Amino acid sequence: MSTFPHRHLLDIERLSATDITAVLDLAETYAGQNRSANKKSDKLNGKSVVNLFFEPSTRTRTSFELAAYRLGSDVVNIDIEHSSTKKGETLLDTVLNLDAMQIDALVIRHAEDGVPQFIAPQMKASVINAGDGKNEHPTQALVDAFTMRRHKKTLQGLNVAICGDISHSRVARSNVYLLTKLGANVRFIAPSYFMAPSYGKLNIPTFEDMKEGLTGVDVIMMLRIQHERMAQGEFAVSLKDYHQRYGLDHKKLAAAKPDVIVMHPGPINRDVEITSQLADDPKFSVIHEQVAAGVAVRMAVLDLLLSGR
Amino acid sequence: MSTFPHRHLLDIERLSATDITAVLDLAETYAGQNRSANKKSDKLNGKSVVNLFFEPSTRTRTSFELAAYRLGSDVVNIDIEHSSTKKGETLLDTVLNLDAMQIDALVIRHAEDGVPQFIAPQMKASVINAGDGKNEHPTQALVDAFTMRRHKKTLQGLNVAICGDISHSRVARSNVYLLTKLGANVRFIAPSYFMAPSYGKLNIPTFEDMKEGLTGVDVIMMLRIQHERMAQGEFAVSLKDYHQRYGLDHKKLAAAKPDVIVMHPGPINRDVEITSQLADDPKFSVIHEQVAAGVAVRMAVLDLLLSGR
Amino acid sequence: MSTFPHRHLLDIERLSATDITAVLDLAETYAGQNRSANKKSDKLNGKSVVNLFFEPSTRTRTSFELAAYRLGSDVVNIDIEHSSTKKGETLLDTVLNLDAMQIDALVIRHAEDGVPQFIAPQMKASVINAGDGKNEHPTQALVDAFTMRRHKKTLQGLNVAICGDISHSRVARSNVYLLTKLGANVRFIAPSYFMAPSYGKLNIPTFEDMKEGLTGVDVIMMLRIQHERMAQGEFAVSLKDYHQRYGLDHKKLAAAKPDVIVMHPGPINRDVEITSQLADDPKFSVIHEQVAAGVAVRMAVLDLLLSGR
Repeated sequence: MSTFPHRHLLDIERLSATDITAVLDLAETYAGQNRSANKKSDKLNGKSVVNLFFEPSTRTRTSFELAAYRLGSDVVNIDIEHSSTKKGETLLDTVLNLDAMQIDALVIRHAEDGVPQFIAPQMKASVINAGDGKNEHPTQALVDAFTMRRHKKTLQGLNVAICGDISHSRVARSNVYLLTKLGANVRFIAPSYFMAPSYGKLNIPTFEDMKEGLTGVDVIMMLRIQHERMAQGEFAVSLKDYHQRYGLDHKKLAAAKPDVIVMHPGPINRDVEITSQLADDPKFSVIHEQVAAGVAVRMAVLDLLLSGR
Repeated sequence: MSTFPHRHLLDIERLSATDITAVLDLAETYAGQNRSANKKSDKLNGKSVVNLFFEPSTRTRTSFELAAYRLGSDVVNIDIEHSSTKKGETLLDTVLNLDAMQIDALVIRHAEDGVPQFIAPQMKASVINAGDGKNEHPTQALVDAFTMRRHKKTLQGLNVAICGDISHSRVARSNVYLLTKLGANVRFIAPSYFMAPSYGKLNIPTFEDMKEGLTGVDVIMMLRIQHERMAQGEFAVSLKDYHQRYGLDHKKLAAAKPDVIVMHPGPINRDVEITSQLADDPKFSVIHEQVAAGVAVRMAVLDLLLSGR
Repeated sequence: MSTFPHRHLLDIERLSATDITAVLDLAETYAGQNRSANKKSDKLNGKSVVNLFFEPSTRTRTSFELAAYRLGSDVVNIDIEHSSTKKGETLLDTVLNLDAMQIDALVIRHAEDGVPQFIAPQMKASVINAGDGKNEHPTQALVDAFTMRRHKKTLQGLNVAICGDISHSRVARSNVYLLTKLGANVRFIAPSYFMAPSYGKLNIPTFEDMKEGLTGVDVIMMLRIQHERMAQGEFAVSLKDYHQRYGLDHKKLAAAKPDVIVMHPGPINRDVEITSQLADDPKFSVIHEQVAAGVAVRMAVLDLLLSGR
């Protein structure tokens, strides 16, 4: 455990392939523990984890909360939905006050890019990024890698297509960093208005056509369309047109390898970015496995960051 | 414990008299434990209980939460107040995602009838109905039966009057099923606009006159008037008139048996459906005992459903 | 432990100097425990603490929650933000229902003065006042005393200036009672529109001029300006003017003793009642120590009230 060389989990960008593998390996142990009758260990007994969410989240918050409980830690939830700061107190004062209470980990989600990275150097507690703006969502990428590895043994040489609203997606960004570090070949499939910004030196091939983009891939990662934005007329395309061109169904899937797996970080818009039929098809869809992996991966992260303290 | 033949607690309708008695008997044990200095056992150590409330509730949620803690379980609370689904995710996806996190029980309250019954067959976790629309609220009926049994030894042959806003009451429905299964004689007292729908083969006598209806009863169960609806003019009657005809007071109580007990599932509208004086009269009112029984009965339910897993 | 002669912590007014010292002494033990790797004991194992907050609070609620967890207690949080009562249920019914669930402590914050004192005599659980209107906030005053004692060895003879919006401050009131009981000399510094009401027999010297008021003091306690009220034109003074006259900075500080400490109960309005530079100056500011002390002091309070039960 003591070989994990980080105090915080801020993003995938600064992790090495070895770091990532350490998380995935330990998560395997916890995935087993989670299937047993008593899912609880006392590894983090007496620790205090605080979930500080400035954006609403049921799934991620619950996943972290269960992860902490199953390691024996206490958890305090703080939901601050409508403002990034309260009554004139700065964000930094808020988190430093929590730090003064001798908490061990602060799991933070914030609508602005870079918040976890900004606060971490000033905190004694471990800071875990649960999503910062459009930047990163590192634990989701670890969850996705865990799921891919289970099905494909290794990520080395794997062809992975990330499809949909890439431009606004912190999930996409974290996955790009992780997948390239572990030797997978990433490609983007999206209409121009959803295409990702450049990723510096990473030269990600892009496709506007689904059939072309899906040809020969091992893994398809569909992203959520925030169709509430579409409804506001931001995009000159109807949901129905979008679904026709970019919604994944069994027919489009035929271009991929026969043993392709289909992933989605959730929440799903059924029959928008993916058909209900495909999302529920156990032959291809590993969406529920991703959710199950979520708890195990977050247990591994908490353990690696906290158990040596 | 292993004799309880259900994976879920969805309603009273599908429980047998034996099932009900098993819950009540075990609840007696926990009622004793709750009066001791250390109220906690490790019976459900390592289990994860999720409270998923789509309608606000302080009392029922707190009661389930304390029940789970006192058996050593962890608890995650999810309050979704304003919508039945979130950001386009279906209710079924929400609960299946929680199920994928290897939770052991999902306690769910929802404004629509039949939601727990709909999701249960698809869940690995035990589903516990904490109130579904106007349909059922099974743990409340178990709490009420527990309280009656303590005071009247048996429910067999007991005359029980359910009074007030029966038509909208899931508490009334669950009680009707339970009381008839255990051999009590139920009657309804309500004005026509609050009278219950038919209960199939169960032929429940109805009374519009309180004095007539209360004559000779052993137990009176008052229901909450949602007077916010009255204020909106839905009923052609003022709260004062309603109180005069259907509000329980010591005078109307005289028609019942001398050792009658007065119940209310809460929250009480004092001096609407019941006078403050009577609600607080320890000679008749067992309202606080009902609340105390709530934790013990929910501990019994959680134990019976989860401890064999 | 058994020497603490109170069932509730309602205010500082009814505590003796001996009671206060008992809390502070025990808090020292817990401050040590909180700095260790395993911050958790089983002192209150099996107890149930309920946080019932009718006013929003992140810091105080989190502090009580961590305190309870670190003693092994379970915690249920109930946040009722917008109304003092719900759906017609009286406040008293709400708390008596919680009491019927055999909880051990009710930590309550309410916008109206006197609520904890009103409910306590009717409760079996220990009632802990986490702030009632403009009346008292006893645990904050204990936290402040703990912090002063650490720096100044004793409160006897200490000159303490309380500065700012004293008139609306429950923190000021609790501190006045505590400090005078322990032999400190309290003085107020505030503009007339913020000056405190009389404190009965306690004859508190008042100053309108900062320099005059700060001369020779050992401790300065700055209070939060609710500048949202100022913005509404309630005060004929701008924030900038206020800061100029009453905002604490290094220059005004020169009038105090050289080893003066600067305190603030939070949340801070930086550069309103205190400069950012001074708030962050470790030579004078003990603001983060106050927050850290918060958990230890609340552990001591919970232990003294509950462990003998």
